[in-house]
Amino acid sequence: MKVLVINAGSSSLKYQLMDPATREVLAKGLCERIGIDGRLTHKIPAKDAKYEFEIPMPTHAEAIQAVLDALLSAEHGVIKNASEIDAVGHRVVHGGEKFASSVLIDDEVMAALEECIPLAPLHNPANITGIQACQKVMPGVPMVGVFDTAFHQTMPAKSYIYALPYEYYEKDKVRRYGFHGTSHRYVSARAAAMLGKPIEELKIITCHLGNGSSIAAVDCGKSVDTTMGFTPLAGLPMGTRSGDLDAGIMEYLMNKYGWDMKEMMNVLNKKSGVLGISGVSSDFRDVETAAHEGNQQAALALEAFQYSVKKYIGAYAAAMGGVDAIVFTAGVGENDGNTRMGAASGLEYMGVKMDPEANNVRGKEAVISAPDSKVKVLLIPTDEELMIAMDTAAIVGK
Amino acid sequence: MKVLVINAGSSSLKYQLMDPATREVLAKGLCERIGIDGRLTHKIPAKDAKYEFEIPMPTHAEAIQAVLDALLSAEHGVIKNASEIDAVGHRVVHGGEKFASSVLIDDEVMAALEECIPLAPLHNPANITGIQACQKVMPGVPMVGVFDTAFHQTMPAKSYIYALPYEYYEKDKVRRYGFHGTSHRYVSARAAAMLGKPIEELKIITCHLGNGSSIAAVDCGKSVDTTMGFTPLAGLPMGTRSGDLDAGIMEYLMNKYGWDMKEMMNVLNKKSGVLGISGVSSDFRDVETAAHEGNQQAALALEAFQYSVKKYIGAYAAAMGGVDAIVFTAGVGENDGNTRMGAASGLEYMGVKMDPEANNVRGKEAVISAPDSKVKVLLIPTDEELMIAMDTAAIVGK
Repeated sequence: MKVLVINAGSSSLKYQLMDPATREVLAKGLCERIGIDGRLTHKIPAKDAKYEFEIPMPTHAEAIQAVLDALLSAEHGVIKNASEIDAVGHRVVHGGEKFASSVLIDDEVMAALEECIPLAPLHNPANITGIQACQKVMPGVPMVGVFDTAFHQTMPAKSYIYALPYEYYEKDKVRRYGFHGTSHRYVSARAAAMLGKPIEELKIITCHLGNGSSIAAVDCGKSVDTTMGFTPLAGLPMGTRSGDLDAGIMEYLMNKYGWDMKEMMNVLNKKSGVLGISGVSSDFRDVETAAHEGNQQAALALEAFQYSVKKYIGAYAAAMGGVDAIVFTAGVGENDGNTRMGAASGLEYMGVKMDPEANNVRGKEAVISAPDSKVKVLLIPTDEELMIAMDTAAIVGK
Repeated sequence: MKVLVINAGSSSLKYQLMDPATREVLAKGLCERIGIDGRLTHKIPAKDAKYEFEIPMPTHAEAIQAVLDALLSAEHGVIKNASEIDAVGHRVVHGGEKFASSVLIDDEVMAALEECIPLAPLHNPANITGIQACQKVMPGVPMVGVFDTAFHQTMPAKSYIYALPYEYYEKDKVRRYGFHGTSHRYVSARAAAMLGKPIEELKIITCHLGNGSSIAAVDCGKSVDTTMGFTPLAGLPMGTRSGDLDAGIMEYLMNKYGWDMKEMMNVLNKKSGVLGISGVSSDFRDVETAAHEGNQQAALALEAFQYSVKKYIGAYAAAMGGVDAIVFTAGVGENDGNTRMGAASGLEYMGVKMDPEANNVRGKEAVISAPDSKVKVLLIPTDEELMIAMDTAAIVGK
């Protein structure tokens, strides 16, 4: 079965054509500047080939058509006929409380996605546009929605409720949703496979650390808590995001500088996090270089980030009454041994013993704890596209 | 030595006359409605006597004079001559980064307290007014300032820095300060005494749970992290306060309801926390009664509060690389066995084993963990007034 995986943003669209059974990626790429002019980057991993095109993309429909044309092209295509695409899997950011798992898209689902727009006003409209464009260009092909929030819908109320007047949960659906669910689900399942144990018997803490970062507590295969909240601003400090905050700071700064909420949110979303503390960059590699060159703020930014990760690992071990495995994934988690070591060292009291040599690894599955560590620490590259393709195949194949 | 301990609010003033060496409280009481009309409640613990007076108190100076008159009164006094008061210890909420310990008050200190007003606009002016009133009524008596923030000034930068642009720390002093420091210092010192070990060898987590709540990580006698932040709104959910929050929620609710920041802060400070979730009360006793009667929101409020405490215990154990003792104190911590049990159960993986029978205790020092618990769990009633009196005696006695 061949599945086209689509991740549509407001002016961009990522795609992968893959076979979820063999995990082979036949082609992948990116449409950019949709609605402006249009650019397609198309890659064929098997040939290690990359192609770039300027193609007018007034809407997402032309972008999807350009993707189809590229996939079918005699020169740089990978399929002969559009009918070879058995299904399309769409990444959707927000499924609200409606969707606790992936779903075959029909009119009812589309209406529910519309209802979730207030919860993700930037992301869900783009995802919906992507789905509609595919429906237009590929009529009759079954489509599946895979939600960033779905995996966390198993959280108990004590984890998702905010200490706000309850009416804002009841009326306005203000609660913790959590994001990166597809990634947390993928790496926790891989962790169980690596440990050779049923996931139903494991307590796993999954640390998705990238430009956006979140941690999840996965007990018996179910997410029971996660750091991102009502929005993806919450929890850990990130590349440019502040994470959770004392609201009193916002009041103080808004009064002092005469900002409105929009200006305040711009600071918290775009100028904070590791970029804010370091004053250098949101890219951990730049910050590490600066720290090595003696920049104190850069060193503090890294230290504060690692310390936040460590505290959440401790918090989620307490939440689950222990932990069997800690997983690091995503850009920073997969490639930055210093961050992993900083976050997971000093936890011998709870049975975590890192192996500095084993931790000297990048971007591939590995056990990075010492052989006698009671808690296994794992590096597992995430693969949200594979997870989306697998869900799509499972639902369409039914 | 006799020390008068003063805790001045904007329209109220609490006092205790005590001997820090014997810990005897000779008299204590409360002035209320200062600037409105004036009411004095005066108690003599040794006689189990309580007196109430209506006395005009246009300013704090008349309130202090009324306190002195009561202490000196032939009928309900406890001293013969004002000169028996050797010193006055003042509780001061915010010492900023200037004060890492208690200090003899002089003109320079008064100027520094004025500088801290922007950090505690409601509390520090009242504290300053209280000091000035005492200086007027009791000239020549040495006065000491004891700060809620001082104990936490030992926090490392990774704990106190927020993931905001660094300039707001440098220019505006936006950082974690923490509060309840006098209480965390007192109970951590008592914990070491109860365990019969030097505090320099202990890792202690102190849970001050009352209407306002905070938790501190005390490593070798020094606070290394705490849940309250730039303001006392941060950290745990409290009686009416939200604790830390996803700023995205504030943007969402402010846009939806057309609130300005002042309205938003009023919700977060006055209508949230345990009151907000339960819809019943900010008083844990009322909420527990409602939960027992089957109120689901009340049960959820208690569960969410206990779960938050538990997660911070886990986080601070990770921060310190383990824990030797967990202390519960303040109104809820001293009197509510359910909360203690909910927060500290299920932590066997880190060496905590509660003793349900030993936990069936209120308001007195007790070990509430099982005899074979590696981590000792302690109930220790706090005594901020004693701590203030002891600091005052130590500084004045030099």
